Amino acid sequence: MTKKAETDTTTVPQVETVAALRDRVATWRNAGLRIGFVPTMGALHQGHLSLVDYARDHADRVVVSIFVNPKQFGPSEDFDRYPRQLAEDRAKLATVGTDLLYAPSVAEMYPEGFSTTVSVAGVTEGLCGASRPGHFDGVATVVTKLLLQAQADVAVFGEKDYQQYLTLKRLVQDLDIPTRILPGPTVRDADGLAMSSRNAYLSAPEREIALALPRTLTRMVEVLEAGQDDIDAVLRQGRAALQEAGITQVEYLELRDAETLRPVTRLTAPARVLAAVRVGQTRLIDNMAVTPPRR
Amino acid sequence: MTKKAETDTTTVPQVETVAALRDRVATWRNAGLRIGFVPTMGALHQGHLSLVDYARDHADRVVVSIFVNPKQFGPSEDFDRYPRQLAEDRAKLATVGTDLLYAPSVAEMYPEGFSTTVSVAGVTEGLCGASRPGHFDGVATVVTKLLLQAQADVAVFGEKDYQQYLTLKRLVQDLDIPTRILPGPTVRDADGLAMSSRNAYLSAPEREIALALPRTLTRMVEVLEAGQDDIDAVLRQGRAALQEAGITQVEYLELRDAETLRPVTRLTAPARVLAAVRVGQTRLIDNMAVTPPRR
Repeated sequence: MTKKAETDTTTVPQVETVAALRDRVATWRNAGLRIGFVPTMGALHQGHLSLVDYARDHADRVVVSIFVNPKQFGPSEDFDRYPRQLAEDRAKLATVGTDLLYAPSVAEMYPEGFSTTVSVAGVTEGLCGASRPGHFDGVATVVTKLLLQAQADVAVFGEKDYQQYLTLKRLVQDLDIPTRILPGPTVRDADGLAMSSRNAYLSAPEREIALALPRTLTRMVEVLEAGQDDIDAVLRQGRAALQEAGITQVEYLELRDAETLRPVTRLTAPARVLAAVRVGQTRLIDNMAVTPPRR
Repeated sequence: MTKKAETDTTTVPQVETVAALRDRVATWRNAGLRIGFVPTMGALHQGHLSLVDYARDHADRVVVSIFVNPKQFGPSEDFDRYPRQLAEDRAKLATVGTDLLYAPSVAEMYPEGFSTTVSVAGVTEGLCGASRPGHFDGVATVVTKLLLQAQADVAVFGEKDYQQYLTLKRLVQDLDIPTRILPGPTVRDADGLAMSSRNAYLSAPEREIALALPRTLTRMVEVLEAGQDDIDAVLRQGRAALQEAGITQVEYLELRDAETLRPVTRLTAPARVLAAVRVGQTRLIDNMAVTPPRR
C-alpha cells in the first residue's frame, strides 16, 4: 500500500486534446525549454522507457503520447486485441520522469470527415511494407499529425522498428517538419529477445522458439563482419537456422543498406539484417546493424 | 527612368532557401508579429495582389512564395510553358507592400531522394480531380511543405481555385498544421473574366468567347437564387449557353455543396456553381457562390 501511494504522488500530468497539449508545450517553449517527444502505442516496456531516457538527454521536457492508431493496422491484424493498459503505462512513465502524457481518443485524432493520407515511397517498399499494405501510410499519417500537434524539437523512435524509423526520417525531411528524428537503440531482455508489446502474446514454449530470431541475426552479423562475402549463402544459412529452431513462418530475412534499405549484394557500406517471423499467431520483427569488414 | 529608379528602391527582399525563410520569419515571430503567407506560382496579376492585401489585413508581415510546382502538372499539361517572370512579379509585389519574397528552386523543394506524397480524398474527387489525375496530390504535397517551411499564422488561397481552397482547408485541419487558411475572393477583369495567369494564353477572339463563362455562371446563380428548383434544367441551360457562345469543350459544369463539394440535388445550403472549359488550347476554370433562396 505504501508503494502504491508513492506511485500515486508522482502521477504524470495527462492531456487528451490537441489544444491542451499545445497549451502545455507553448508554456515550455516560451520559457526557452527544448521539447522531446516519444510517440508510442502504449503497453509500455523497458524499451519504451529507454526512449524516454534518450529523449531526456536531448531535451528539457519530455512528452510521451499513447495512441493505438487504427490506421496502421490491417483488417486482419491485431488492432482489437492490441494491449491497452493506460493506468499501468502512466505509472511506468512516472518512474522515468515524463513531463506530460498525451493520450488522445480516436475521435480527437480522426474526427468525422478526416480525409488525408501521407505516403512515403522507396524505404517503405518490401520488408514489412510488402506484407502489411497500408501500414506505413497509417504510420506516416499519424506521425505527421502527432509531430505537428506536439511541435517538439526532437522525437525519438526505436530502431527495433527500423523500416519505420527510416520512413519517418524521410517523411520529416520531405515535408519540412521542424522536428529532428532520433533513433533509440533496441532494448533486449536478458535472453536476447527484442522488447515488444507483442511479446506478451507468446506462450512460454513459443518464447523459447522465438529466441532463435535474435540468435540467428547475431550469428549472421558475426559471419558477415568476419568477411564472408557470399551474402546469399549467409541468408540461406540464416533461414535454415530459423527453420531448424522451429520458426517455420519466415516472412522475410534480408540484408539491406542501412540508409536506403536497398538490397545489399556486396557489403561495402553500413547495412542491416532485418527479419519478420511468425511464432504461433504472433508476428515478431528484429534487426541488427552490420558494419562492413575492413578489406 | 525616374519611375524605374523609384521601383528599384522598394525592392522586396528575396530568399531562396528554407533556412533563410525560417530565419526571417523567426525574427518576426520573436518580435511578437503575426505572419501572413500567400503561396503562388508567379505570373502575378491583380488577383494575386488582392490576396497579398487580404493577408496584410490579417497579419503584421506578409510572405509571398513563387514556385511553379512540377508535381501539380500532368505530363501533358503546361508546366514548361507556364509563364515565369520573377523580376516583373517582384516589382508588382513591391507595389502592395510585401515583406518577403520566397522563391525556392525545384532542387530546394524536392531534393534527390524526395519520396513523400500527401493526398486528400473526398473534396478532391470529381471536378478538376477527375480530369487532372495527381493534380491535387501535387498541390497538397507542395502546400504542406510551404506551410511547414513558412510557419505562418495565416495563409491565403484564392476562391477562384475553389476545389483547391477546400482541399487545403481539409488538409490543414486533418494534419494539424498550425496555420489558418483564409479564402481570398475572386478578382475579375472589367469584362467579367476571372483573373488567371493562364488568361495570357488567350488570343483576342478567344477571350471574347471565354467571357461566356462568367456570363453563364452569373445567369445560373440568378436563376437558382430566384427559386428555380429544377437544378438539372439550370445545368442543361448553362451548358447550352456555353455551347452557343462557342465554348464547345465543357469539361464540367456543376452545382456542388459549398463545404463538402457533394453534388446538390436540392438547394437548401450554400452552394457553388463550378465550371472548367477549354477555349482553344487554354483551360479555364471559374466558380460562383449560390445562396439558397428563402422559401
